Amino acid sequence: MRGLRLFGVGVAAVVALGSGPVSEPGLAGFSDAAARVEREWEAKFRAIPDPARLRADVQRLSARPHAVGSAYDKDNAEWILAQFKAAGLDAHIETFDVLFPTPIERRLEMTAPTTFVATLQEPPVAVDPTSAQTSEQLPTYNAYSVDGDVAGPLVYVNYGVPEDYDRLERLGVSVKGAVVIARYGHSWRGIKPKVAAEHGAVGCIIYSDPRDDGYFEGETFPAGPFRPDEGVQRGSVMDTYYVGDPLTPGWGATKDAKRLPLKDVTVITKIPVLPISYGDAKPLLAALSGPMAPEAWRGALPFAYHVGPGAARVHLVVKSDWSLKPIHDVIATIPGSTFPDEWVIRGNHHDAWVNGAEDPVSGQAALLEEARAYGELLKQGWRPKRTIVYCAWDGEEPGLLGSTEWAETHAAELSRHAVAYLNSDSNGRGYLSMSGSHTLEAFYNDVARDVTDPESGVSVWKRLWAHRIEKAKTAAERKEIRERPDLRIGALGFGSDYTVFLDRLGIPCLSLGFGGEDEGGIYHSIYDDFYWYTHFGDTTFVYGRALAQTTGTAVMRLADAELLPYRFTNLADTVDRYLGQLKKLLASERDEARERNLELKEGVFTATVDPRAPLLPPPAETVPPHLDFAPLENAAETLAGSAERYDAAVAKARADGGAALAGTGIAAVDAALMGVERALLDPAGLPGRPWFENALYAPGMYTGYGVKTVPMVREPIEQRQWAEANDGIVRTAKALTAAAAAIDRATAALEKAAP
Amino acid sequence: MRGLRLFGVGVAAVVALGSGPVSEPGLAGFSDAAARVEREWEAKFRAIPDPARLRADVQRLSARPHAVGSAYDKDNAEWILAQFKAAGLDAHIETFDVLFPTPIERRLEMTAPTTFVATLQEPPVAVDPTSAQTSEQLPTYNAYSVDGDVAGPLVYVNYGVPEDYDRLERLGVSVKGAVVIARYGHSWRGIKPKVAAEHGAVGCIIYSDPRDDGYFEGETFPAGPFRPDEGVQRGSVMDTYYVGDPLTPGWGATKDAKRLPLKDVTVITKIPVLPISYGDAKPLLAALSGPMAPEAWRGALPFAYHVGPGAARVHLVVKSDWSLKPIHDVIATIPGSTFPDEWVIRGNHHDAWVNGAEDPVSGQAALLEEARAYGELLKQGWRPKRTIVYCAWDGEEPGLLGSTEWAETHAAELSRHAVAYLNSDSNGRGYLSMSGSHTLEAFYNDVARDVTDPESGVSVWKRLWAHRIEKAKTAAERKEIRERPDLRIGALGFGSDYTVFLDRLGIPCLSLGFGGEDEGGIYHSIYDDFYWYTHFGDTTFVYGRALAQTTGTAVMRLADAELLPYRFTNLADTVDRYLGQLKKLLASERDEARERNLELKEGVFTATVDPRAPLLPPPAETVPPHLDFAPLENAAETLAGSAERYDAAVAKARADGGAALAGTGIAAVDAALMGVERALLDPAGLPGRPWFENALYAPGMYTGYGVKTVPMVREPIEQRQWAEANDGIVRTAKALTAAAAAIDRATAALEKAAP
Repeated sequence: MRGLRLFGVGVAAVVALGSGPVSEPGLAGFSDAAARVEREWEAKFRAIPDPARLRADVQRLSARPHAVGSAYDKDNAEWILAQFKAAGLDAHIETFDVLFPTPIERRLEMTAPTTFVATLQEPPVAVDPTSAQTSEQLPTYNAYSVDGDVAGPLVYVNYGVPEDYDRLERLGVSVKGAVVIARYGHSWRGIKPKVAAEHGAVGCIIYSDPRDDGYFEGETFPAGPFRPDEGVQRGSVMDTYYVGDPLTPGWGATKDAKRLPLKDVTVITKIPVLPISYGDAKPLLAALSGPMAPEAWRGALPFAYHVGPGAARVHLVVKSDWSLKPIHDVIATIPGSTFPDEWVIRGNHHDAWVNGAEDPVSGQAALLEEARAYGELLKQGWRPKRTIVYCAWDGEEPGLLGSTEWAETHAAELSRHAVAYLNSDSNGRGYLSMSGSHTLEAFYNDVARDVTDPESGVSVWKRLWAHRIEKAKTAAERKEIRERPDLRIGALGFGSDYTVFLDRLGIPCLSLGFGGEDEGGIYHSIYDDFYWYTHFGDTTFVYGRALAQTTGTAVMRLADAELLPYRFTNLADTVDRYLGQLKKLLASERDEARERNLELKEGVFTATVDPRAPLLPPPAETVPPHLDFAPLENAAETLAGSAERYDAAVAKARADGGAALAGTGIAAVDAALMGVERALLDPAGLPGRPWFENALYAPGMYTGYGVKTVPMVREPIEQRQWAEANDGIVRTAKALTAAAAAIDRATAALEKAAP
Repeated sequence: MRGLRLFGVGVAAVVALGSGPVSEPGLAGFSDAAARVEREWEAKFRAIPDPARLRADVQRLSARPHAVGSAYDKDNAEWILAQFKAAGLDAHIETFDVLFPTPIERRLEMTAPTTFVATLQEPPVAVDPTSAQTSEQLPTYNAYSVDGDVAGPLVYVNYGVPEDYDRLERLGVSVKGAVVIARYGHSWRGIKPKVAAEHGAVGCIIYSDPRDDGYFEGETFPAGPFRPDEGVQRGSVMDTYYVGDPLTPGWGATKDAKRLPLKDVTVITKIPVLPISYGDAKPLLAALSGPMAPEAWRGALPFAYHVGPGAARVHLVVKSDWSLKPIHDVIATIPGSTFPDEWVIRGNHHDAWVNGAEDPVSGQAALLEEARAYGELLKQGWRPKRTIVYCAWDGEEPGLLGSTEWAETHAAELSRHAVAYLNSDSNGRGYLSMSGSHTLEAFYNDVARDVTDPESGVSVWKRLWAHRIEKAKTAAERKEIRERPDLRIGALGFGSDYTVFLDRLGIPCLSLGFGGEDEGGIYHSIYDDFYWYTHFGDTTFVYGRALAQTTGTAVMRLADAELLPYRFTNLADTVDRYLGQLKKLLASERDEARERNLELKEGVFTATVDPRAPLLPPPAETVPPHLDFAPLENAAETLAGSAERYDAAVAKARADGGAALAGTGIAAVDAALMGVERALLDPAGLPGRPWFENALYAPGMYTGYGVKTVPMVREPIEQRQWAEANDGIVRTAKALTAAAAAIDRATAALEKAAP
């Protein structure tokens, strides 16, 4: 019995979960009879994906550099199209024209106290054949950096996030007029030039410190998987007011689409940016004087890290070709037999910065194996009830262009038809990384219980459970992991192609992929290629198979279910948790402000100044007010009540074998269910970035990759905007209440459908 | 009023303490009238110490290398004697003959996979004249390493403490037959070869990682204060069964003393040990293969740290001259006018590993300024009530030889006469480091409130208070710091000359010194010299003056007090806290064992094995039993009651101006008071190391420097020896109860003395 299990878990169930995957008596969304049939098809499906084919596909797709606009990018799209067609799927390519700047000029030199010209080159490696495809490789650069020719003193800003600048202020160091050098990590890279510009810097260099993905972590390529001296992380630095083509925010970048003039585009950086290797960063950082960098800022280069400024001055030139380039999304469909207007969408991008064997080809190969396996099952008579849409996106790397433009073009249909979007991107060895919409949390857990981990032989669910037990920091955390039936899944920020589906269209999303045991330092470099992947990644492609098995099972199960297997008690539980976090956040910000002000009054900061390494006192802070969380509390309670009633209705419908689930009324239930996640959208959008409409999930304005849940409340609290926080509470409560109402409609429809 | 202040602090007092030193209405141990006189003398005293003289003294004493047995060591002793005499003090030299091995042969070479011979040399630095006194410098070595010529594969063991070997076991790496390379830090250096030998290693190399005191921390010498490439930390690796001359444990190493044959000495290492620089360590560590070192083990050398073993093999030769060498303690006295048989003892060592401007000369110079100032005050008519004994110890570096042999020689007198021992060693810029016997905690706090910090202008007490507020990790910690009248002082382990006084003779001790803002990496190297100290240490000698002012005030106040200013409520409060820690320790060991066993049963460790970086499951553990803490709880309560009654008696005696304190009965009170800390001694000594008798304070068997309070209970719990723990509870309770009885005797004597 799955009914109400969040709120009434028996001891027996806990023990069983703790000791391995449970052989469920039924399957959420299926009658017992349908579940038996489904399990047979799923087992057949999981037997098909083949490591040898995955290896061949990865080799083919990563054989040459294939960034947006390149010949091999288009070639890959056409090859993928052919694979879909060979599997018997109905497939086509959709092309969009997008703004994608490519480098014309890049120059970085130190002009004082000594001179040094950065190489800005990743050298080929003898053992690695594709690393020598120099003429086809995009140079090392950050896409969407504004053009510029700037010079100034150099200042080291650690990861370049806002709190780093608070520390610089206490050190008495200003970046006004300076070129900052930040290290990669701890934020979406686009945050670094954004925050630097807000503080008056004129240019921004981003480098990969060996502490973070170089020799500190392990042997470097080609002896090991980590970033060598001259390895550089390319990447987009687009700001996060919206994603997709910068010229067409909110609508598809079709041939004749209206396009913003470049000058009106807000997502291009305000100052020029260039990424460099630690080989190039070494002389720059070594030339810095000024205060010692705080301990947590120091990397693994073999000298004392100073913040600057000092005698070190640099000159930075960045210039791009700003012409439009075409992108090619490959779309394949399997029509649904019973609910053809309910779409289960699955995607992975195919474009890469260079060869991209790991990012994204390792995920794309799994997607192709899933499609091939469906072709086999279709031949054997399998017919999904819902329509399945497989998407190989182009243009993800620059800014989720392919997925966003496609979804914006088809927004109205997607809003009506999409039941879920399942995304993967890179794949590796290790643990299933579970993130997504909490509506699908229980469903995702069930799928993970049915896939075997290739290394340990236990289910991928059990392995992740064990990993979480091992990493838990407190007894309370372990207790929750042991007692809660489902593993909590993370919320999604941005960073891959689910963004438009989740944040703009309110479609339940899952992100799938394995990793954690195949760490490396070749991300977005020429060394992310077949040689690296077959020596240090998922070398035997057994995790590629596991990804195809997991994602494919999830897609099938969603498409075959008699009733959409959403589960809102998990959502309500999660919302409740977020509410607790928000209260705690406010309380701790209040405590911190009071403590800081008290210490200022007590003279703590002045008494502890070291005259040879002075630190200025921080500014006094206004203590945050209490906020009225009641609207959110009431909405969360309403949501929980609706979720429980829906669970009860499902349990009733499933009683006696669940014949009721096969009835004709289910289409109406599904329609109501699809309205639940849509109801989380606030059509006015988030303050300052109306493209984002989801009231529960959003990327952080100052974290990027990092999600901010309940963004209209959490970000104003963090940024001390109290009127906005109060407004956000009301607006979020409204969205949650609307979601509860949609659940109630589904419950009513289900009660009507059941006998 | 000071009476009972631990248990009845008003709000006003808290605010006052939080906002700076309180102008106390009286002075503990003094009647109001006597306090006024004392404050005048103390103010005169504190005006005398002179930075220019401190500078000159540091230069003189560190002008040449002066290790034990050297010509300049003896020369310094004679010069110090002359200074004491010039100040008008009665002074003499006491000489002992001790075992102090000096190097004959040192060799370390890598024989595979490539060859490398370690330089084992610290090169002179052009700007630093004394660094070139090569012929007088002791070579880089670890004193009391056994002679040996060994070879084996090399294994990196991090800090080489027991938990590092637990980790190696999980990594599947054995050190049996291997030479280990450990980094300095996180334990007394002698622990590293001890634990290595226990695990079957045949040799031990200790190196200074640049992460710990080299370039990671800041610029290296001579550009900055940190350890350069070839800097080496010399030092003793004597085991901690006892301290002092290895041949005369428990008795003085006088000319004709009975001496153990060398073969019966237990404190010499079991395997040869040699310290090296990171310049020498670099090729050795770079040659290691095998598992990656865990993240916390990795230092700041620019490559991936592996644990080994692998192809790397080393050959290590250590051979010493084991002849006896003379040590010269310089002892000076000022006779007491009222209580000549009550001795206040003050010491600092004068021997160094090389030139030792910081260690120990910076402290020795302060001691000399105190003595000089007393000479001035004596001329002006000041007469201390108690006898003051000033000691410049020799042979501290090898193993606290000078202080220990002197105290063992004079043990009977010291037991009868010593009221306190005040120690300093190195001195630098920053914060007063407050440690010692909790009997003197309130007294020490009061002294610190009366000395002005040279950098901030607030009292050294207030500055430390602010520092602790700043570093506190929780609101609860800050609350205690704000509300408790006294700053907690640390307990003493070993590592300087207080050890014999505290751990063997039960004499209340204080350790004094400033630091925290003058970090460096020249410890025990040739670069700890006048050049370094005047460029990076307490360059203007204002903290040398502050040390003389603090220590001198404490000595004077102890010597001048009408009644010994011990305060037992602080002791009782501390004992209570230790008891809480012990219970928490046992509870958390129980929790950890249960959790580990549960995870073993759940298969957590096997499910999370990475086949390419395997980690073996830890062994199952027996869950520790509950222990009967009742004897300790009862003893702690008895102690607290006695302490409160004594405070009340003092308050009563001080009422109406405290004329009662000047009465003739006070000698009897003092005699009883001296019995309190002595009562903490258990004549049977600690299990396995009977030389140590203090039931409250001891150095850790596996930490060395790190103190283990309530050692007869804490160490058995940590080492899972339950019978010993139960026995320790009973023995410790007995000692505490005896201390309470001694306090009661003091209370009775005081009540009798007062009208």
